[in-house]
Amino acid sequence: MLVKEEPLADGWERVARPPALFRRFEFASYEQTRAFLDRLAALSEETGLYPDLGFAARHANVTIYGQGGTTPGAAECSFADRAAGLAASAEG
Amino acid sequence: MLVKEEPLADGWERVARPPALFRRFEFASYEQTRAFLDRLAALSEETGLYPDLGFAARHANVTIYGQGGTTPGAAECSFADRAAGLAASAEG
Repeated sequence: MLVKEEPLADGWERVARPPALFRRFEFASYEQTRAFLDRLAALSEETGLYPDLGFAARHANVTIYGQGGTTPGAAECSFADRAAGLAASAEG
Repeated sequence: MLVKEEPLADGWERVARPPALFRRFEFASYEQTRAFLDRLAALSEETGLYPDLGFAARHANVTIYGQGGTTPGAAECSFADRAAGLAASAEG
């Protein structure tokens, strides 16, 4: 069966077992990292999607799982796209 | 050579390669997780110690490395102890 995959925002990759979208964001400062995480938290509250997050002072790794172990779909890809925009604005 | 190790707050464990302190905190809600992370960020800004953090909606994994690859010392153990207090207050 051919599965049509949602288009993926720049910089994100698909990972398997379990299926997820992954991206590492790097920042010039801790303040930028915090600004990104705060905005990402607001996006999670709006969308109900809570990715796994790993971060330290100047980077954040974001892993967005598909719901119930399924392949990430339109909702997850939209979240990934918007997260990339939040990272860009946190740098600004 | 016998190395005297700082006493460690309850719930924390020492890991090796690289030497670090680790603890997983679990919370009943996303709001509690966020409250903990916000307080931990303030503690990082006060102390200048930035642990590695991994979190999702209802847990946070905290890894505190020793400075320059050394065994975590008094500053890191104090941070661990205060972090445990912040987790308890985030649950309150």
